[in-house]
Amino acid sequence: MEIREITDGDWAQVWPIVREVVRAADTYTYEPDLTEEAARGTWVEKPPSRTVVAVEDGRVLGTAKMGPNRGGPGSHVSTASFMVDKEVRGKGVGGALCAHVLDWARAKGFAGMQFNAVVESNAAGLRVYERLGFEIVGTVPGAFEHPTLGRIGLHVMYCDFG
Amino acid sequence: MEIREITDGDWAQVWPIVREVVRAADTYTYEPDLTEEAARGTWVEKPPSRTVVAVEDGRVLGTAKMGPNRGGPGSHVSTASFMVDKEVRGKGVGGALCAHVLDWARAKGFAGMQFNAVVESNAAGLRVYERLGFEIVGTVPGAFEHPTLGRIGLHVMYCDFG
Repeated sequence: MEIREITDGDWAQVWPIVREVVRAADTYTYEPDLTEEAARGTWVEKPPSRTVVAVEDGRVLGTAKMGPNRGGPGSHVSTASFMVDKEVRGKGVGGALCAHVLDWARAKGFAGMQFNAVVESNAAGLRVYERLGFEIVGTVPGAFEHPTLGRIGLHVMYCDFG
Repeated sequence: MEIREITDGDWAQVWPIVREVVRAADTYTYEPDLTEEAARGTWVEKPPSRTVVAVEDGRVLGTAKMGPNRGGPGSHVSTASFMVDKEVRGKGVGGALCAHVLDWARAKGFAGMQFNAVVESNAAGLRVYERLGFEIVGTVPGAFEHPTLGRIGLHVMYCDFG
């Protein structure tokens, strides 16, 4: 599996992954009815941010985006998001993408990486993030309306590079 | 003092307030060199979000914006931001604006209000927020590059309406 910058030609494979994740509405606070155009505008980042795909034998298995979490006096902390094809979850794609974005952010000189809204029911994500050095900074109670679990918490997580 | 929706004619008084706050770069993670056009696009919200001004005798003393903090499954939690004219700080303008946005968010049926990035050195803001029911959910260490204090924490705060 190779992780590389997204190209225009990848979008046809990336969009079905993004669409499934936003329609499921159980891990991200995107609008569930997000259009393809809006999704592309949101997911495919411009410099200094960056979007990558994880590819194996020409097939896109997952995607990640990364960049500064905030502007101005907050721009030394990075952030990132991940989406993995439903068909290949649990096989290490998310972990590889997370390790990749951490390497990128360290190399770029960021001081750490913050996740602003990790749904507390996202056990697979949390396992990866904690293994790679993230800690839960705090949890906003009931801030995520889960389709089956009701209102559950959103974690703020941070990985310090110091 | 009256708090009301911003009008086109107010911007000439709002921009100097926004400019001073972003140039000082000690309370918000806006780019310090934010242009007037970008500031207007960021600060003057479109529905369902909303921007107000606090006015006394035709003079704008402060401004606030408010709306959903996130999209989709996160849209039941509100957020808000405040800026007060440097000349009239410490006189209750910020507190009145904060009480106003909380009333608005409760009336709109939001479940609570979240602040995503409160600079830990912002003692005046913290005093107001805590008095009005906000609690610190967690603090991202060193996430704010303060012009004189160096890297200090950013609090995530939450006020539950339940």
